[in-house]
Order: sequence, then structure tokens, then C-alpha cells
Amino acid sequence: MSALALLDYASVFVFALTGALVASRAQLDIVGFVFIACITAVGGGTVRDVILDRPVFWVANPNFIIVASVAAFVVFFTAHLLESRYRTILWIDALALAVAVPAGVAAAVAMESVWPIILIMGVATGCFGGLMRDVVCNEVPLVLKQGELYVTCAFAGAGAAVVLLTLGQPLPLALIGCAAVTLALRVGSMAFGWRLPVYKSRPPRV
Amino acid sequence: MSALALLDYASVFVFALTGALVASRAQLDIVGFVFIACITAVGGGTVRDVILDRPVFWVANPNFIIVASVAAFVVFFTAHLLESRYRTILWIDALALAVAVPAGVAAAVAMESVWPIILIMGVATGCFGGLMRDVVCNEVPLVLKQGELYVTCAFAGAGAAVVLLTLGQPLPLALIGCAAVTLALRVGSMAFGWRLPVYKSRPPRV
Amino acid sequence: MSALALLDYASVFVFALTGALVASRAQLDIVGFVFIACITAVGGGTVRDVILDRPVFWVANPNFIIVASVAAFVVFFTAHLLESRYRTILWIDALALAVAVPAGVAAAVAMESVWPIILIMGVATGCFGGLMRDVVCNEVPLVLKQGELYVTCAFAGAGAAVVLLTLGQPLPLALIGCAAVTLALRVGSMAFGWRLPVYKSRPPRV
Repeated sequence: MSALALLDYASVFVFALTGALVASRAQLDIVGFVFIACITAVGGGTVRDVILDRPVFWVANPNFIIVASVAAFVVFFTAHLLESRYRTILWIDALALAVAVPAGVAAAVAMESVWPIILIMGVATGCFGGLMRDVVCNEVPLVLKQGELYVTCAFAGAGAAVVLLTLGQPLPLALIGCAAVTLALRVGSMAFGWRLPVYKSRPPRV
Repeated sequence: MSALALLDYASVFVFALTGALVASRAQLDIVGFVFIACITAVGGGTVRDVILDRPVFWVANPNFIIVASVAAFVVFFTAHLLESRYRTILWIDALALAVAVPAGVAAAVAMESVWPIILIMGVATGCFGGLMRDVVCNEVPLVLKQGELYVTCAFAGAGAAVVLLTLGQPLPLALIGCAAVTLALRVGSMAFGWRLPVYKSRPPRV
Repeated sequence: MSALALLDYASVFVFALTGALVASRAQLDIVGFVFIACITAVGGGTVRDVILDRPVFWVANPNFIIVASVAAFVVFFTAHLLESRYRTILWIDALALAVAVPAGVAAAVAMESVWPIILIMGVATGCFGGLMRDVVCNEVPLVLKQGELYVTCAFAGAGAAVVLLTLGQPLPLALIGCAAVTLALRVGSMAFGWRLPVYKSRPPRV
């Protein structure tokens, strides 16, 4: 199995877990769990593939849908064991981001894209699945959570991959670096409050 | 006219009615009615065609847009006659779902897709138009309405089609079975409260 | 540079300004500004290109992303100088609409589309970027703002282009007419309250 396929599987499974957890907060039935899990799991990669004009990855290989459905079933029968579903979503989502960003990078590299496209595909694949999940389920998008790094982690991770590739490092190393930077920043942001200065308006907010 | 084109026309017209009814709740002007009606009417099929990498059905044949616009005009001039627009939306939406799911199935079959893709295209074509309508108009998505079958009806309908096709039945019969199962479950859910067990958390909901 | 490329650049820059201004209301960091600016700036054109099955314009030429990022930086460092960010968004958005609609028209003409598709691509390119911005950022979509022309301006502008082209006028003139009609109607609506009759229900709104 190629590195890209492996990353896609991991990203699909982990994002599907977060989708199903959000579905559990909306008190859906099992089919609703699978539906939201699938949108979350394949949303980012679908946007990536449609924009790059590649065959959509889960149409070419429907096993991805089965993986996402399994994740939905797991959550349906175990989510009541969690103490805080919201905090669990945050942590699993961080993991999902850290595999989805390199998955986006790998797909763009496979298309021999220039580096701005590699960067964007990393960010888009990482962020769009969760964004669709939150928009469909009427949650405030995690992407917009104030005072936490999110898009920034995806951006830094994809940037690390671009730098490593430009330095002539092999693709697997670049992907590992990408995942590590993304995860480290996101976890640091959640655990230790790392952040960038946000925009602060001087006059009262209008 | 092929079965697929016929289903697409019916689905476009009926979904456009629901879109225009939602536009009437948002008190838009006639162009706004046509805009929301068109998004609702062609949204699901557009997602289906883009993902399957087929030419988008209404670009190949702009008559679909005219049909959706006619539906918007009909609603603009008659919606005030309705007693409850919200209940009317629910019932017409059920009808739209029951024609859009077989339309998705028929498109996937025309592409000689494997059965998981047929299933997904049925569900996606059925659910995404209404989902876009509700997201754009800031309504709580019908797809997520608690304690009612929705995605489940689409899934069961598409599943019925897959079973009938696998048993060697001809496509038109499979599509009729698909529509019948979808409509029966949705109407049963609205009228008699049929539902699947939903996820219920044991600890207090967080 | 072709008329289409020029319009695309202008539309990307101006829509990116509105996206970054909305990001400033959500108090994001600079990467968040760039993210929302890019979604707003290229969203409409991306939908247009995917539906028309053309290569997505900013993948073929990543300079568009750089332009959108520059706009995000400009806003990040100057938005505090504005008296009312909301009113500024409204006025810049009007300008963006007036360049995005002819950009959509030009793309459809370049594909030798029939007139209903030209009309739709004008409206979609004009409206979808701002719609994505508002949906992602949890703002009430401008498209739906009661009692103001919005989609109607895009529709009238695209319609003007179609009429001019049908009368045998050259493309640049049709695009200028399109921009002028769109801008005039939108500004007239904001400044002087021009509007179409909206749907008004006789019975109490349900």
C-alpha cells in the first residue's frame, strides 16, 4: 500500500470518529452517525481530488467508506463511556488533522504540483472535512475557534513538508515532518495555550 | 426520454418547490426564490455528477434550470394560500427525496459503478440538495431533525435498489422499488412516528 | 493578459478584502485571515470551473492565491482604522460582486456555453464566494439580506451581458455593461433602498 493510501485510510478513520462524536451530540440514529462520519471523513479529500481533477479517492476504492462506517459503529456503541465527548472530539480531531494534512500534501506531490498548490492542498484536505462536519451539524466551526491555532497548524505542517521536499529530502520523511509539526502545534495550542497574536480592533467591535 | 432524465426532471421540480418555500420563509424577492430553488433542485445532482466525473446534468441540458425557475414562480404566487408552509415543506420534501434517491441510483448505474457507490450516490443525491438549502437559508437541516427518519429512508431506498439489481431485476423495477421504500419510510416516520433507536448518552449530555 | 484573467485578479483581490474583514470580526490570527480570504476570493470561481469542467483557475496559476493573501495582510494591519467594518464589508462586497459576475460570464463565454449557462455562471461566480464566507464564518449570508437587492443585481448584470452579446456587441463591451449594471443596482439598493417586491405572506408567518 502506498504512503498516500495509508495516510488516506488513517485520516478517514480518525475523522470519521470525530464526525460520529458530533452526531452523538446531535442524537442521531445509526444511519445518521454513518452519514456525518462519511462526510467528515471523505469531505476534505473529495474537495482535494475534485479541485486537482483526480478521480475521487473513495469512488476509486469504496473501502474507505467501509472504514468510515466502522468508525461510526464503534462510536455509536461506545460514546456513552466517554466523560466529555466535546474534549474527546478536540483531541481526536487534532490527530485527524495531523494525518489529513500530509495526505493532502502527498496527493498534490503525486500530481507534480508546484509548491503553493502543495501547501493549499495540505491545508484544504486537513480543514475541509471538519469544516463540513461543523457546518452541517450547526456547530461553531473548530477552524474558527478563537484563541487557538488550527488552520495555522495545518499551514505550518504543510509548510514543513514543502521545505523538506525543497531541501531534497525523500517524500516519506517530508510527510512525517508534516504530521509531527501539525500535531505538535495543535496539541501545544490546546494544552499550553500556544497562539499567534489575533486581530484586535482598537475601536469597539462593530 | 430516459428513466434517468425523467427522474431528474421530477426531482428538480419538487425540490425546487421546497427551496422556494424556504425562500418564502426568508421573505426574499422573486430572484431570491429562483436562486434558492435552483440550489436546492440541482445541488444533489451536481455533487453526484462532479464526484462521478460526469458532465453536470443541467449544464448539458439547461432545461432543468427552467423547470426549477417555473417551480419558484409557482410558489412565489401561491405560497400565501398555504396554511402552514413548514408542514408543506416537510411533505413536498419527502416526495422530492423519493424521486432524487432513485435519480442518484440511476446515474451511478449508468456509470457501471459498484454497489457501495450506487448506495452512496442514492443517499447523496437525495440529501445534499436539501442540505444546501437549509445551510444557505440558516434553517436547521431536515437531515438532522431529531427523532425522525431521513437519511435512513434514503439509505433504505438505495439499498432496496441494490438488492433488486443484485437479484437480476430490471433497472426500472429497481428504481420504482427504491422510490417506494424511501417514500413509505419517510411518510411513516412523519405520520406515525416510525424511527430507529437514536444515540442516547448515559451521562449528562456535554 | 486576457480580459478574463484581469477580471479574475480584480475579483480575487476585492473578495479577499471582504473575507479578511469578516475574519477580523471573528478575531482570527493572520493565518485565519488568509484562509477565509482565500475561500471567499476563489470560492465562486472554483465552483464555476468545477461545474464547467475547466481546470480550476488558481491551480493553473497560483498567483491568485498570492493576491488573496496580500489582501488578507493589508486588512490585518489596517482594519482597525475603519470606523465600521460591517459597512465597509457591504461596500467592498458590492464592488467584488460587480467584477465577479463578468468574470463568471467571461469564463462561460470562453467555453462557448449557451445563454442560460452564461447567466447562471455569472450569478454563481458572483454569489458563491461570499456565500461560503458567510456560511463558514456563521454570519447571516448577505445573499439573503431582507429588503435589499443582491442575487437580483448579479442576475441583472449577467442578463445585460447576455443581451449585449446577443445583439452582436464585442465581449469587452458586454463585460463592462455587466459590471456597470451589477454595481449600479447594488449601490442603488444600499444607498437609496431600491428593491423588488418581496414575498409577503398574508397569514401570520409560520
